[in-house]
Parts: sequence; C-alpha cells; structure tokens
Amino acid sequence: MTDNDPLHAIDTMSEECGVFGVYGHPEAANLTYLGLYALQHRGQEASGILTYDGKAFHHERNRGRVADIFSESCLNRLKGHAAIGHNRYSTTGGNKLENVQPIVVNYALGTLGMVHNGNLINGNFLRDELEAYGAIFQSSMDSEVIVHLIAHSKRRHVAERVIESLGRIRGAYCLLFLTEEGLIGARDPYGVRPLSLGKIKGGGYVLASETCTFDLIEAEFVRDIEPGEIVQIDEKGVSSFKPFPKVAPAQCVFEYVYFSRPDSNLFGKNVYAVRKRMGRELLKESQVEADMVIPVPDSGVPAALGYAEASLIPYDTALIRNHYVGRTFIEPQQSIRHFGVKIKLNAIRELIEGKRVIVVDDSLVRGTTARKIVKMIRTAGAKEIHVRISSPPIVSPCFYGIDTPTRNELVASTHNVEEIRKYITADSLAYLSTEGMFRAVYNNSSEYENKHFCTACFSEDYPIPFTGEERVQLGLFEDQALPN
Amino acid sequence: MTDNDPLHAIDTMSEECGVFGVYGHPEAANLTYLGLYALQHRGQEASGILTYDGKAFHHERNRGRVADIFSESCLNRLKGHAAIGHNRYSTTGGNKLENVQPIVVNYALGTLGMVHNGNLINGNFLRDELEAYGAIFQSSMDSEVIVHLIAHSKRRHVAERVIESLGRIRGAYCLLFLTEEGLIGARDPYGVRPLSLGKIKGGGYVLASETCTFDLIEAEFVRDIEPGEIVQIDEKGVSSFKPFPKVAPAQCVFEYVYFSRPDSNLFGKNVYAVRKRMGRELLKESQVEADMVIPVPDSGVPAALGYAEASLIPYDTALIRNHYVGRTFIEPQQSIRHFGVKIKLNAIRELIEGKRVIVVDDSLVRGTTARKIVKMIRTAGAKEIHVRISSPPIVSPCFYGIDTPTRNELVASTHNVEEIRKYITADSLAYLSTEGMFRAVYNNSSEYENKHFCTACFSEDYPIPFTGEERVQLGLFEDQALPN
Amino acid sequence: MTDNDPLHAIDTMSEECGVFGVYGHPEAANLTYLGLYALQHRGQEASGILTYDGKAFHHERNRGRVADIFSESCLNRLKGHAAIGHNRYSTTGGNKLENVQPIVVNYALGTLGMVHNGNLINGNFLRDELEAYGAIFQSSMDSEVIVHLIAHSKRRHVAERVIESLGRIRGAYCLLFLTEEGLIGARDPYGVRPLSLGKIKGGGYVLASETCTFDLIEAEFVRDIEPGEIVQIDEKGVSSFKPFPKVAPAQCVFEYVYFSRPDSNLFGKNVYAVRKRMGRELLKESQVEADMVIPVPDSGVPAALGYAEASLIPYDTALIRNHYVGRTFIEPQQSIRHFGVKIKLNAIRELIEGKRVIVVDDSLVRGTTARKIVKMIRTAGAKEIHVRISSPPIVSPCFYGIDTPTRNELVASTHNVEEIRKYITADSLAYLSTEGMFRAVYNNSSEYENKHFCTACFSEDYPIPFTGEERVQLGLFEDQALPN
Amino acid sequence: MTDNDPLHAIDTMSEECGVFGVYGHPEAANLTYLGLYALQHRGQEASGILTYDGKAFHHERNRGRVADIFSESCLNRLKGHAAIGHNRYSTTGGNKLENVQPIVVNYALGTLGMVHNGNLINGNFLRDELEAYGAIFQSSMDSEVIVHLIAHSKRRHVAERVIESLGRIRGAYCLLFLTEEGLIGARDPYGVRPLSLGKIKGGGYVLASETCTFDLIEAEFVRDIEPGEIVQIDEKGVSSFKPFPKVAPAQCVFEYVYFSRPDSNLFGKNVYAVRKRMGRELLKESQVEADMVIPVPDSGVPAALGYAEASLIPYDTALIRNHYVGRTFIEPQQSIRHFGVKIKLNAIRELIEGKRVIVVDDSLVRGTTARKIVKMIRTAGAKEIHVRISSPPIVSPCFYGIDTPTRNELVASTHNVEEIRKYITADSLAYLSTEGMFRAVYNNSSEYENKHFCTACFSEDYPIPFTGEERVQLGLFEDQALPN
Repeated sequence: MTDNDPLHAIDTMSEECGVFGVYGHPEAANLTYLGLYALQHRGQEASGILTYDGKAFHHERNRGRVADIFSESCLNRLKGHAAIGHNRYSTTGGNKLENVQPIVVNYALGTLGMVHNGNLINGNFLRDELEAYGAIFQSSMDSEVIVHLIAHSKRRHVAERVIESLGRIRGAYCLLFLTEEGLIGARDPYGVRPLSLGKIKGGGYVLASETCTFDLIEAEFVRDIEPGEIVQIDEKGVSSFKPFPKVAPAQCVFEYVYFSRPDSNLFGKNVYAVRKRMGRELLKESQVEADMVIPVPDSGVPAALGYAEASLIPYDTALIRNHYVGRTFIEPQQSIRHFGVKIKLNAIRELIEGKRVIVVDDSLVRGTTARKIVKMIRTAGAKEIHVRISSPPIVSPCFYGIDTPTRNELVASTHNVEEIRKYITADSLAYLSTEGMFRAVYNNSSEYENKHFCTACFSEDYPIPFTGEERVQLGLFEDQALPN
Repeated sequence: MTDNDPLHAIDTMSEECGVFGVYGHPEAANLTYLGLYALQHRGQEASGILTYDGKAFHHERNRGRVADIFSESCLNRLKGHAAIGHNRYSTTGGNKLENVQPIVVNYALGTLGMVHNGNLINGNFLRDELEAYGAIFQSSMDSEVIVHLIAHSKRRHVAERVIESLGRIRGAYCLLFLTEEGLIGARDPYGVRPLSLGKIKGGGYVLASETCTFDLIEAEFVRDIEPGEIVQIDEKGVSSFKPFPKVAPAQCVFEYVYFSRPDSNLFGKNVYAVRKRMGRELLKESQVEADMVIPVPDSGVPAALGYAEASLIPYDTALIRNHYVGRTFIEPQQSIRHFGVKIKLNAIRELIEGKRVIVVDDSLVRGTTARKIVKMIRTAGAKEIHVRISSPPIVSPCFYGIDTPTRNELVASTHNVEEIRKYITADSLAYLSTEGMFRAVYNNSSEYENKHFCTACFSEDYPIPFTGEERVQLGLFEDQALPN
Repeated sequence: MTDNDPLHAIDTMSEECGVFGVYGHPEAANLTYLGLYALQHRGQEASGILTYDGKAFHHERNRGRVADIFSESCLNRLKGHAAIGHNRYSTTGGNKLENVQPIVVNYALGTLGMVHNGNLINGNFLRDELEAYGAIFQSSMDSEVIVHLIAHSKRRHVAERVIESLGRIRGAYCLLFLTEEGLIGARDPYGVRPLSLGKIKGGGYVLASETCTFDLIEAEFVRDIEPGEIVQIDEKGVSSFKPFPKVAPAQCVFEYVYFSRPDSNLFGKNVYAVRKRMGRELLKESQVEADMVIPVPDSGVPAALGYAEASLIPYDTALIRNHYVGRTFIEPQQSIRHFGVKIKLNAIRELIEGKRVIVVDDSLVRGTTARKIVKMIRTAGAKEIHVRISSPPIVSPCFYGIDTPTRNELVASTHNVEEIRKYITADSLAYLSTEGMFRAVYNNSSEYENKHFCTACFSEDYPIPFTGEERVQLGLFEDQALPN
Repeated sequence: MTDNDPLHAIDTMSEECGVFGVYGHPEAANLTYLGLYALQHRGQEASGILTYDGKAFHHERNRGRVADIFSESCLNRLKGHAAIGHNRYSTTGGNKLENVQPIVVNYALGTLGMVHNGNLINGNFLRDELEAYGAIFQSSMDSEVIVHLIAHSKRRHVAERVIESLGRIRGAYCLLFLTEEGLIGARDPYGVRPLSLGKIKGGGYVLASETCTFDLIEAEFVRDIEPGEIVQIDEKGVSSFKPFPKVAPAQCVFEYVYFSRPDSNLFGKNVYAVRKRMGRELLKESQVEADMVIPVPDSGVPAALGYAEASLIPYDTALIRNHYVGRTFIEPQQSIRHFGVKIKLNAIRELIEGKRVIVVDDSLVRGTTARKIVKMIRTAGAKEIHVRISSPPIVSPCFYGIDTPTRNELVASTHNVEEIRKYITADSLAYLSTEGMFRAVYNNSSEYENKHFCTACFSEDYPIPFTGEERVQLGLFEDQALPN
C-alpha cells in the first residue's frame, strides 16, 4: 500500500477515480492540474479539465497521465475562475475517449459539466427509462444517466435539478458539477467515497477527493462534505443542502487500507497513522519470532514500520524497487519469460540470507504476486518467511466504484487461510482481523463502538439495498443472503 | 540516495552512464534490454543496443527511456547471439542523436561498435592529432576518439588494436566493444568505474556496470573485471589481458554513496549494507536528541535506517513521494510558482507536528533542495530539524565521467558547515567524515588501511595525473596545488 | 474546378461533405474506405466509418485525411457487411473531434449511426425545442438534431421514425443511417445535394454522394435517389418511400461548376462534359483575340479546353503546379512574405512572354487569387491578359451545406464586372451568363426550359422558404426581398 | 511527365536528388527551405538544411517531405547568412537517418557540410583505400568518400582540398560545400547533372539543381555552372576554377524527358517547350488516325499537347487524377485487390466510349502501368488505343545518380516494340527515335550536330570510362562492349 504505486497495481483492488474542483480563483485550471497531479494514484488511464470564465467553457481531456495530457499551451487555453477535473481508472466500458470525464453537455439551461467518483446501482434501470423518453446516450458510463436526469428535470435552477435527480439514483458517488451558476458538490447519503472542502490561500474554494491536494496548492482544510450533503459554491460563498433522509453512513474502509495517499486525512484521521497502527494491531494478533521485518514497497511500508516498531524486530527495505518501471515495458517474448514482479523488485541476498523474515503488505487479492515475492525472498536465502497482511481477507467484490476482480479471482473467497498460505508457499500467513482494523482506525477511542464504515469487500455486508433484478445483474444470488 | 530516483535528480551529482554486453546467448538483445532496464538509474536520456548475428550487425538507438525506445518489433529486429548496450546521461555535447551510443562505425577490419562509461582526460589533445591525420568526427563525444585510434592502428586483430589505443588514452573508462571477432571489455588501470563479469544460466557471458542486472537475467556473478584488465569473450570463452603497468587503484567511492543501486554488489561489498553502516557511523560522529528519524526518500532510506536502528530513535517515512512524477511536468507559469520539491514530496503534519526530527540524506550538492525540504518540514510543525548527511562535503568536481555542477555551484566548496546550516535553515547539520565513510565501507575490517578509492570530489585529490594544459582546460589552476 | 484540388482551395466556395454507405458486402469497411478516398475532395478535415456485423457496431473516426486515418489494423477492426462513412469539411463548430461524423448514439431502439451532407435551416429552432424536453447535445453540429428527433419518436421501426423526423426539418440533406435494421438513405425534397445508388459487382448495394466512387469499387450505377425519396436497404433488398409532398426540385448547379469530380455523372450528366461545354458557351458570349488559352490548374482545365477547341486558339498549361503542396507549409515569417499562389503555381516565361493570353477558371469568389495569378502572368511577360470565368458572378452565400465566405467577402456581391476587372488588373474580364451555364448543362436539349436547379449563389433566389426569424439569423434582411 | 508527380512514380526511372545553396542573404535557411520545396520532385524521402551564421553551424534533417520536416521553430533555429540543403531520394543504403544529407563533419580545418546529387563510379575503391589509412565510415553513402578525401588532404584551404579530392573521383556529381570559408559548388567534368547560379534580388547568390527555384525566391538566373567548373562564393563574390582537363560533356537527356520541372530552364532550354516539341516529332514519326489525344496525367501533358496541336486531333484530359493520393494509402488486403493505377486515375467513359484514342506518356519503363492504363481505357469503351511514348526505349540502367530498375526489369531491354505492344495490349505502340528526341531538344537548330548529352539509358553508351572491376561490380560485362 502506502501510496498506490505502479508496483502494487499488479495485484490489488484497482484504483477508482479522483475528482477536484475550484471556484473563485483566477488560475482555476492550474490549481486543478496540480490537484489531479496529486490524485494521480486514484486513476492513471485518462484525465480531463473543464473551466468556465464567466462567458465560455473550455475543455481538455485525453487518455494518459496528467503530466502528459496538459501542456503549457493547453493550460493557457483553459481560462476561467472555476474548474472541475477528473482522473479516470478505466473500468467497464473500456478506455474509449468518449468515456473520459468531465462529461460536458448542452441542455436547456445552457452547459453542464460533471465528474463522478463512484458507481450507480440502478444505472441500467434508469438508462432504459430515459431512452424510452427519447434520451440518447453517447458513452457506456453509468455516470451519463445523471446528466440526463438533470436535463429532463423541469426545475429552474441547476442545484434544484441536481437534488431532484440524485433523489432517483442509488449507489456511491462523489459528484462535482460546473455550470454558469457555480460549482456544485454532492456526496451520496452513505458517504462511501471521500470529499473534502478547502479554502485557497489566494482566495476561492476547492473540493477534492483527498486532502493531500490541499497541501500542494496551499489550501486550508475546512471540513469533509457530509454524507448526503450537497454544496453550491458561487459568488455568494458556500451554501449547504441536506435534502435526503438520513441513513447510517458507510464510508469505504479500504480507502484507509490502500486507496488514499498516506499524507491525506480521511474521514478525520491521517491515513499513514492508521496504517501504522494496523501494523501494530497485526503484531498483537499474530506474533512470530523472526530476524527482520520487510515491507512490500511501497504499499506495505507503514504497516511494516508499525509491526517492527512494536515488535522490536529490525526493519529493512530488503526488497528494492526499480524506480523506472513504466507502463510500456515489453516482456521479451521468448525463452526468458514470466518476469512478473522481478522487473519491478529485487531482493538483497546479503540482507536476507539465512534470516527468518516477516513480509508485510496491506492486502492480498489474487495471491499471485505474494507467491512470486515469497519465491524471490526464498531464492535470496531466507530461512523462514512469514507473511502478514494488514487487513482482513477480501471475499467479495465492490459495487461502489472500485474495480475488483470477480469473486472467483479473489483467493480468499474460495480458500481458507491455510490454503492460501500453501499457495503462496509461506511458512506462515496471517491477516488482520476486522476488529483489529477498526481498533487501528479508531486508535482505541470510544468511537469504536459506533463505527460507520462499509466493509462489504471483507464481509459481504453491502450497505446499499439492491432490488432482486440488480442482484441478478451483479451476480449476487439469493442464497448468499444479502440484505434487501 | 538509495536507488537514484527521479526525485533525487533535483540536486545531486548527476548520473553517468551504464554499459551492458552479452556474448553467446541466442537472445542477446532481450537480455541487454533487461540489463539496460535495470541500469536505467545510471542514465535516462538515451539508450541504444547493437547486436551481431554472425553475419550482420543490427542497431537501434534513441532518446528516452529504455522501455519507451525498444518496442517488441524493435527487439525482434535486433537478432544475434552477441550484443552491447548503453544508457546515456547527457553531459556536454547536448542531447543530440549523434551522441547516443553505441558508436557504430565501418573501418578497415569491418564493423566496430563501442559503449563507454567514463570520461577521457586527454580527449581533446588526441582529437586534434587525429584530425591532423585526416580523421573526421561526427559527434561531440570524446568517446569517438577511441574508435579513431583503433581505426588508425595497423594491428591485425581488434583486441590488439584496442590495447594499442588504450595505451594512448588517459582517464576513466569502462568500455565494451562488439566486433565480428567477439565481445571485448576493458576497465581503466585505476578502475574508477565498476565492471563485473557474469555467467548466464542459459549459456553465455555478460559484462555489466552493476551486478543488480545479473539477478534480473538469472546470471551468476563470476568476478569483477580488474583495474587495467581487458577481456575478450568469444567462441573460445573468456581470455584476459593485463597489458598496462600496475598503478594504485582509485575506485569511485561515490558509487557507494549514491550512484549504484542498493541491490548491487560493488567492489566486493553490498551497496545497501555499506549505506546502512554509513548511517551508523554518522550517528557515532554526530549524535543528537530527537523524536524521530526521517529519510529523504528514497536516497536517504538505508542511512536513515542505520542511524535510527543504532540510536533507537523511531524511524518514519514522514515525507511522502508522488510516485507519478515524470519528466514532463509543466510548472504552471503564473502566481502559483516555485513548487520545486513540493510537487514530488509532501510532509505528513500528523507525524511531525511538535517533534524534534532528524532528516537523513546521502549527500548535499547545491543545498537548494535541502533548504526546501527543511522548510517543508518546518511548515509541517517540526520543533527542531537536524540534518545528517551520510557522506563528506563535496568540494570539487568529478572529471571521471560524472556530471557534477561547477565548483562554484558546490555549496561546500565555498561555505563551511555552519554557513551551510544557516543557508538550509536547519537547527543542526552534520556530515559523515571521510574516515567514517571508509569505516562503513570496510566494516572495520583490516582492509581499511589499504583503501584504494578515488575521493577527489571530497578531497580534491585527483588520482589520474593531468598535464598543465589539461589543468587549464578543466579549470584546475596551479594554486590549487593539484598533483601533477 | 475540375477536381477540387488543394490549390483551388485558396479562393473558392469551400467543399462541403461526402457520404458513402454499403449494405450486403463482406468487406463493407474496405469499400467505404475506398469510397471516402474517392470523395476526399468533398472534405479533408476529418473522416469516420461505422460498421455493423450483425451483432456489434464498430466505429473509427479522426481528424485528417482518409489515407492517414485508416490503418490496416483499423480497417480490420471495422468488421461487418454494412457500413456508413463521412468526409467532413469543417464549417461552424470548429474542428473538434466531437463534430466528426458518423454520429453514433445509443437510444431506445438500440444503436443508430448517421452521416449528413447538407445543412438544416430550422436546426436552431428544433434544438431549443428538444432541449426543453430534456435533450442533451454533445456537439455543435445541427445534424445532431436529427438523431434526437428520431430518439424522441415513438414509432416502432427506424424507417418510420426517420420519416416522422424528416417531416419536421427544413433544409438540404443527404442522410445515411445505419441501424440493426439495415441501411437507410434519404434525400431532401428539393434534392439539393446528390445521392446515387449502385450495385456492387461482388454483391450488395452502395449509396454515395458521387458516381466516381462506383468506378473505383466496381459497382454499377443503378439510379439517382430522387428528391424526397427515402430508401431502406436490408436483407430483402431496396425499398423506396416517398412520404413527402412533391416540390419543384432545386439541385445545386454549383456541383457542376466546381464541387463534383469531373469523372462523376451528376443529375444525369457527366461533369467534365458539362464543364467543357461551359467553356464553349463562354467563348460564344465573350470572344477575344489572343495567342493562347491557359487554364488555372486544375480547376479551369475542362472549360479552357472547351474555349480553346471552339476558338482554335492554342491551349497550353503554362501555369505549372507544385504537386507536393501540402497542408503544413509554413510561410517563412520575415522579409520574404506573401508567397500566396507562388508556392503552388509558377508561370513559364518562355511560353507567355510577349503573348496575348486568355486565362480560364471555373469561378471567382474573393478575387484575391485571380489578382495574384494575373500579376504572375504579367511578370512572366504577357502582353495582354483576358480572364474568362465559366460561371456567373457569385453574389450570395449558400445556406444549404456549402461553406461560402460572407456576402461582404464575395467580390461580385459588392462590385460590378468592370470594378472586379480593375481589381484583378486584367485587360478584360468576362463571366458566363446564367443562360449560358444552363445551355452547357442541357447541351441545348429540350430539357432546358424545365430546369430544376438551385442558383441561389448566383441569383439570391433561395428555393427553400425561410421564416422571418431564420432570415434574421442567417443575415438575410427584408430589404433584400427574399422569397418567403 | 510534366512535373514528376506522385502518380508517375509508379513506373518510371525514379527521382534522384536536389541540391540548393545560398550565400550572403540574412534568411538563408528560409530561402533554402523554399528552394527545397520547389525541388521536392527530385526526392521525397528525406531532407536537410545546414546553415552557418559566422560563428556556429546549425543543422536540421529528417525523413519525410520538406513541409513536414521544417517547422517554424525549426527554421528559426537555422540562423545564418549561408546555407545548403538537400532532398534525398533513397537509393541503395536504405532510408536510414544516417544517410540523410547534408553530411556534416568536424575535421582538421573545422566544420564541413556537403550535399551531393549524382553517383560515384569509383566510390567502393576509394572507400577501401581510405579505410586502410584509418578512416571510419558512418553511413552507407558513397558521398561520404568525398569528405574523407577532403579531410585527408594537406592543403590549407577548403577549395584547394575540394579540387584535390575531386581529382580522385570519377562519376556524376553536383556538389555544394558549406564551410567557414564560404559556399563552394562543383559540377563534374561531364556535366551530367544540372547546376545553375542565380543572384538573389535582396542580395546574395544561390546555387540550385533547377531554375524553377529562382522564380520562387525571386532570384535572377545568372548562368549554368559549366561542366568541370568549381565556384567559391564568399564575401569577395563568386570565384571560378576549372582545374580539370576538358572532356566532351555528357549532360543527362532524361532530365528533359522526365526529371526536371517543366518550368525550369535546363542546359539552356525550357523543359516544357522541349517536351511539347517531342510530341510534335513523335507525330511526324508515327502518325495514326484517331478521334482524341489523351495524356497520362501529368507526365504526358506537354507531349500530348504537342502531338494534338500538330495533328489537329482533339485533346482531352479524359484520365482524371485523384489529387489526394498520398504515400500512406493502404490497399485493403482481401478480395478487392490490385487497385494499382485505379486508386490514382479514373477514365471518363462519356468521353472515351466508341472512340479511337491516342494515349501519350513521356517514357515506358517496366510497362506494367501502361498495361493497366490501356486496360482502364479499354474498359471505358475505347474502340482503338494507340500508345505513343515521347522518348526512345529504355534499355540500360543509369549509374550516374538515378535509381533505375535492373536491366531485366526494363521491358525494352529484353523485348522489341511489337512484343511490348502485345504486353500492354495496345492496338499500336510507337516510341520517339533518338534523332527525333534531339531534334526536339535543339528545335532543328544548328547545334543539333554538336549534341553533348548522355544517352546511356537509351543507347548503353556510357560516357564515363569504367575499369574492368567496376564493370563487374555494376553488372556490365565484356560482351556488352562498353567503352573502356
């Protein structure tokens, strides 16, 4: 874990998306560019920025990394005091340019831009209904449903139309809208994905998926947008609406485990600190005698440090990363095959040889990478290898905006811990318990009893109700006894 | 330090070059591609591979990163059982395609390819002489002088011509030559740059700047090529020549400090282990009370771990890197300026606030980056900031293949430690002593007395003699009392 | 004229668009690629192809020329037995990728692709109406209105929805639709733009803007689609519908003058033959003594040949084209300026010196190019220069799909022939009369009396009625006494 | 023929190269860019420009067309008052960047740039000799030999070294050299390739392969450089040297037939006028009754006009070109194959049907294209097809800088006229005789007796002597009784 580096992408829950918006700053596009840059770990497939300068909208989007997409001339074209931006991790629908956000449309009230982090549950149903009314769809993104609902609303103001439309959708979403009337931000009633509000030093406001962006653009953290809250930011400042009935929040705990950057503060806690405490709790639950603690870089670093610090076993970064791993690496196609993790990592024999080592990572999805890493450490001469995972076993896919493998590909869905240990050829394997995870999140505070998190990927306990038809579409069948 | 990551390139001695050669393996180009990939930290500006298939030579070279230059079809074109490759860090002569190695020429004996890591002292002098004899130069690289000397030799075999030609040059070099007669490797009599020999599991031999490449291609380390040794690898195996008078070796100690990858074994020692010991020695020399030890990622990690482990002060990676920092980042051009290090690093306030922190890095060149990092940590709330550098002050440029700033830009050349401390606004600053550095290298072994290293950048003690004219050309004047 | 070459684009009515569709051939995409290639003169800014293989639709589009856009792998992806394609000349809305056709949307009946040659009169009005019903627009093309009308229709079959929708639009259009139900072609009741039906030798049907495409793909001309006719081509063959009240046709006569390729047969006549007769009629109307007839290459060639042949004055191609003129030519920015036509044409002094020359071109729009050509011929030593234009003066813009300059830029809109002659510095200038033009079209046949053409650009006589509001939007005011 | 258009490249003697140089104009690079643009027909594979600004040389070269290679910023970098440029048609040695001219080298006297149009006979011999002296070759171009000879010379001035070096080479060449001492132009003693001197209106001189460039840059034709003449242009003006013994000139007559642009004046005659007279002579020699004369566009236009004018048979451009034919056209790979000429040309049935047609082209190399064109015209309904070629049969390859097919591919080398007629399926076929060709060149003037042309491709009469070894290398054997 740590910060969602290229390496980890081998075998993890994949990234989702990042959103960023600015209102009231003369360099809205530049700030958004920086914000997307700091959110690159939430999506590397494509990015886009939409700005509004009081008269016209300006739009740039493309496939690729933020730094490659936005040239200086490109940023200069993006004039305006208000902007929204998006980093996309391509999920279903493929990597077509049509699917790159912001979605920008012309409709009865003028122009509307939207970015979305999350996933709708009833998107297909609404799509069919809208098409029956004559709606035309350009993309395969379920996010497009939302702009159609807004376009079909008869309300006079965008914010009213947004509220009316969100009343019809179910699912996980953080949304930013840019219109002639200002910037609107919305977080679903369960608060699955994070969204924070900041005040920019030079004037204006920012809405972003993570607070690490505030440090970069010199904005001050104001507060998190609350679950179910809609804010409109315009010349009059920030207005807040809470139009929906209150439900029990279900914030994504996996943001702590892997997604968010360690320098972000999420749902009120610092991510690095939570992760380090996860390592400590892991030690409490599954101690083992050993000579050294090794993190899987960089995702396992904080938990490994927490584990090592509490256990007094020496910590060493004995797996070395190649910092120049890029997306374009071509595996030579002949006899030398299956580099897999070797192209990215190398184990230092001089440190490992003859040692009993504890290897710490944040999560274990398919198990294939863990198996390769164990093999690499064994080849470097380790006497014993104990794998420690600083989160519980992942048993079920996410339907709230994260690109997980199918249930069958999740090794913990079909195998118990001992079977997994054998598969990855470790001498021992232990996961952090759900209770341990929450102790780490709450740092043993009194909040612990009242935890408001979504743990569906660890527990199959999906907080947002499904209809029977949705269950079938999502591959969740009756006998799995899901809540209705 | 650690592994020469993009971040560190802000303010360090710049990288130099990496060389890699294979003889006797059917996929020589694929192995060379992997080798260059693992040596990317030694040069990111350009790369090239030359192969020989027994009948024809095949050549690909371009500006950019290894993974971007060599496509699958490109590697398929590079047929042959023998290959040489090069990663270039552009120094003088600019980033022209003409200057990308391998140098490949047609001459009296057929075709000759060459790669060079190092720098010649008497290149200009030889160039003038060769031009007087009618030689034509295509590039601005001093390496080109060597192939001209070989072309002008009257000997019958390439190896003889190489020996004759190397007898005329002075400077630092590891050279690989590919010809119809086989692969030739040469290391200068001082052994300034590293060159190791490996045996490939599937058959054949490899010569490489660093041993980390052997792990990736599954080759076994055989031995280092000795200072002044020339090896020819062909169908008959490996032949060795030592035609030059013996001199005291002067291996580059800065390879330990920063250049080489931590998973390489260099001059007989593991680099990571040496660096960690440097941290320990640093603690012995400049202890200070503090609450935490922070590495500058990733270059300061091993020394910081060594320092923390020995001092029992907690270690935390409280500076978080943006893993997606690329070469193409455009700094927005208006009011939000001077991101410098902020775009690459962020300090975690929750960890640092109110703490006395020790920040460890491997070296300090201009001081500008250290100043920014200290400021960032101060802004995050640190109470005291103590900077510890795990190598001595850099006071003089390198003329042996490393792209250093001019003497005036080296902050330690013109300022004492207290002045530098003030400049970087730290509460204290300490460097490792030269003695401490060598204690770390030799791990207090008996070899210590017999150290054979070049320390010119720390000591102005240049091991390879200069003529008066060369001294003038290089900006080294009499009153600096250099050895003649 | 002649064949719409790059040169002529300097100063003419700009191209419009080309459409091409195939049904019932296993290589529909390849045929469409060839068809678009042969129609490149009708639009060079962007192209796209949509295919249907019985199960899925495949879509490729991009800015640029046909041969640059469609690579072999790209054509291989475009599987299917049915296809539509489009060449775009960018008019209003700019050269954005969103505006590249085919338009492809998902709607209630499935997927719908559409290409459009022409221009709607009441597009803005319909757009406002559709937006009020909740429609979302992605592009700035008025063509998008048509697919929204179809999506909002409640009919069960696409063809019925197309008929219902076309009943609501006014303007010039040739449309092709590709859906799961087959290929549909439609031509507006005035028949402004051409659309022909062909039968492919290897099986299947083709619909295309021009018959020159049939020669290339070895299709046989069947017949022109009639004004107001809608055809559906599917497994059952070709069905024809004529659902609209009959109006007097108003086919674009400028297709004969300039747009269509000379090897096409248009509205029943061969274009080259018509143009050559225009040259003959021009001679009858404006004879002059001279030593040679010179065409402006290549647009003036057929008329110049017709003029020379009838006058017995020798014909010479004394203006030589640079065949390598591309779109990317950079005019050096300093003292050597204003190459204009010189970069594309050169006059042969040896032929021209001391001669009285007649220069023939097909039309004269702004007059700026004619002025430069006259100057070039004068510099080459001509004694007298007589300019002859094989069409009437252009006095009014086209609103039916052709990108004309504004009225003020049309030199004949604001100047009489003598004033234009002075401006272009010719010794004499004559245009072909409207009557002469139609004599050439009908070759003095009896059809002449019954001519069914749009001559609005020559006469301001717009055949499709405008509302008052449309007149204002189009810049056509009352005092210009336009038909209502 | 006419102007060496993309079409003709299907089946002709391929282009060679074009050279252009400027001295004494502040925008030397811009003028050279324009000159190369006007010489694009002489080579489309690659281009380069070298400039000198009194202090430094600036160099840009690349594969592709002139207009694609030189961007505005690129031209701005090419500072200086002196420049040389080159268009390359890739012959042997392939299309490697190393082979793109200007050749630029550093040698004893400083920097030397060179461009070459032509071909050396004794290049291989000199290359071996130079390598024996230690020379290193970077490219596979024989032109590189010349710069090595210059580098090996001991003379003090470049011009002296050039003269000494040219004394050692045999072959066809027009050479331009750019050095610190000025611009040097050289034409071989036989004067095979053309080179003309012009005076630029704004100051300075120009040397160019063709005079059509002078019209574009507003330079005045001064004179042709004479066979065997060397000129140096510098601050003192133009100096001329004729250091070599006089030989009978052997100017390439094929420049008149095909290579040069019709608006150039070559060896004292206008090319278009010569070509038109070739058509007239062709009529005299091979009259036939027919209804129309058709040129193969654009190469056959002037001769067809000459033929038609003298015969009083009507002339029509009944073969229509697609003006958008580019290099990148992908022939669809399946059932629709063998487009060949169809993608570039289309015959107008309305003109041709039932007619006896005479088709005129400038030359006939392999016969494959002529065969396709005859078939196309026959399919369009022609009753009789008479092919007339305005030059003699090509029986032997060129060794003087033109890329001809091998002897076996030259249809007239192995077949008589009647056999060729059958192959191309024409009703009759006639070539212009050598005598007729020269009557056209000299316009029946008294010069005719004294003709100084190379006709080797028509006659096997090679004017530059070969050694026996060269004859073997070139595939010219004894029994072919070549001059020694």
